[in-house]
Amino acid sequence: MVPVVIPVRLSEYRLRRRVQFYEVDSAGIVHFSWFFRYMEEAEHALWRQAGLSIAQRGAAVGFPRVSVGCEYHQPLRLEEEFDVTVRVEAITGKAIRYACLVTRGETRIATGTLTVVCVSRDADGAMKAVDIPTEIASRFEVAADIGTAVEG
Amino acid sequence: MVPVVIPVRLSEYRLRRRVQFYEVDSAGIVHFSWFFRYMEEAEHALWRQAGLSIAQRGAAVGFPRVSVGCEYHQPLRLEEEFDVTVRVEAITGKAIRYACLVTRGETRIATGTLTVVCVSRDADGAMKAVDIPTEIASRFEVAADIGTAVEG
Amino acid sequence: MVPVVIPVRLSEYRLRRRVQFYEVDSAGIVHFSWFFRYMEEAEHALWRQAGLSIAQRGAAVGFPRVSVGCEYHQPLRLEEEFDVTVRVEAITGKAIRYACLVTRGETRIATGTLTVVCVSRDADGAMKAVDIPTEIASRFEVAADIGTAVEG
Amino acid sequence: MVPVVIPVRLSEYRLRRRVQFYEVDSAGIVHFSWFFRYMEEAEHALWRQAGLSIAQRGAAVGFPRVSVGCEYHQPLRLEEEFDVTVRVEAITGKAIRYACLVTRGETRIATGTLTVVCVSRDADGAMKAVDIPTEIASRFEVAADIGTAVEG
Repeated sequence: MVPVVIPVRLSEYRLRRRVQFYEVDSAGIVHFSWFFRYMEEAEHALWRQAGLSIAQRGAAVGFPRVSVGCEYHQPLRLEEEFDVTVRVEAITGKAIRYACLVTRGETRIATGTLTVVCVSRDADGAMKAVDIPTEIASRFEVAADIGTAVEG
Repeated sequence: MVPVVIPVRLSEYRLRRRVQFYEVDSAGIVHFSWFFRYMEEAEHALWRQAGLSIAQRGAAVGFPRVSVGCEYHQPLRLEEEFDVTVRVEAITGKAIRYACLVTRGETRIATGTLTVVCVSRDADGAMKAVDIPTEIASRFEVAADIGTAVEG
Repeated sequence: MVPVVIPVRLSEYRLRRRVQFYEVDSAGIVHFSWFFRYMEEAEHALWRQAGLSIAQRGAAVGFPRVSVGCEYHQPLRLEEEFDVTVRVEAITGKAIRYACLVTRGETRIATGTLTVVCVSRDADGAMKAVDIPTEIASRFEVAADIGTAVEG
Repeated sequence: MVPVVIPVRLSEYRLRRRVQFYEVDSAGIVHFSWFFRYMEEAEHALWRQAGLSIAQRGAAVGFPRVSVGCEYHQPLRLEEEFDVTVRVEAITGKAIRYACLVTRGETRIATGTLTVVCVSRDADGAMKAVDIPTEIASRFEVAADIGTAVEG
């Protein structure tokens, strides 16, 4: 009898990270632009966990960002350890929206969102939104408690 | 008779910029995190135009970001020239909100917002929101036609 | 009679630049890694001046760095204006070596070198050193007084 | 009887790291400027291992770079895992020189050096080279086999 493998669908990843010297500005806190890179790192780690790569060599599709935002609650400082939690908030035919939460221990540092859209490229590099391939969309599911986790 | 000097209050700055190699990602487009640095460059150029520096040595106050966002309409590519227009959208007692528009010629590339808050720091570096000093607030005024310019 | 056009061969470019907030570290000076980006900016501006692009879309060759270095003499601080001068120090069949000088007014801030090699890529992206195409090599010539200018 | 504690003096640290999307340029390889940040990350991790912080809040001294260099042997690509080994190559009264080696498995990717100097700052932020405090210098020792390890 052939065993039935039901692949796990992922909806969340928590990345542990330390603030690096080159991320800190002259005010002694992480420059605000870095939080978007932190969120992206967590997103890509989620994809790897799901057995995928965000930018596979020779892939037919890519996932540029179309809308992002971040609210800053507390500063992060040099060498502090922190967590970046990314959760799948919505998947539509062509787009994925993630909610992100940056925390240092129990302290909420920042909350953000990333919306990415699946695109194909023609020979000139022009991008066109297309449906997310099933082998990618099927690896994720919307997080059940996203509202509670990020807003609570 | 002493001439009366009425200082000009500024509400907008347009920065001309070229995409640098290190700003472009492996998809051949400017990495989304760079747009926040472009907006900040334009903000600081606006301040210089107003005779101010965003981070004066030994200044009693600083202006960290508390909320930012960006919508990406079209990609920017290597060595393209583009403009970043920043406009004062609102000034309250402690905060300034800017609306930003990135264009390449007639093409809208991205629209964004930056909200910064005025803070003082205690000896430990802890930040506390305070009123924007008059000598700074008096240099800016809300742009009249911001809605039209950015959304139109 | 047909006029003979002798194209100018370039050996130097001077870039005027201002220190941006996100380039300054928590010690209040430009982070050392940024000087390599400044040098690269000046190199690419030299190429544009020569009618070339360092990374032309669909180009058969690329120019990765194989050896770089920098000596830091004085710090650069927020919003200071400075110049980056890049000079062609040597061109061999496959490589170009540039000498770079960063100055603020009369003050020498940093001196550096970039050595780039011309490569082609196979289908897998593997790089192989190849001769610099004549249409590129013919646009540059070794600077006459490089020693004096950078070391003097 | 009071036990005599002989603190371990450190001379090397190996950092495991993964290439992030924002570190990769349009040629599909890690931008050369990032290697200096990788080396610095490893240096700071060595300091933490030694019970120190490179940029302690309110510290009397800092450690700016005065001379750095890097040779690039093989490219690093998106999401590849690699190691950065930093070794203390020399400690003089005022300076520390590190030799750095970046490897991916058995493949040598890059070799570099960082020379940092200990400085104090006056009220205007002007920096002056000073002796490395004993409590810092005593935590490190020159690596025995640096030549073999990096050059071999």
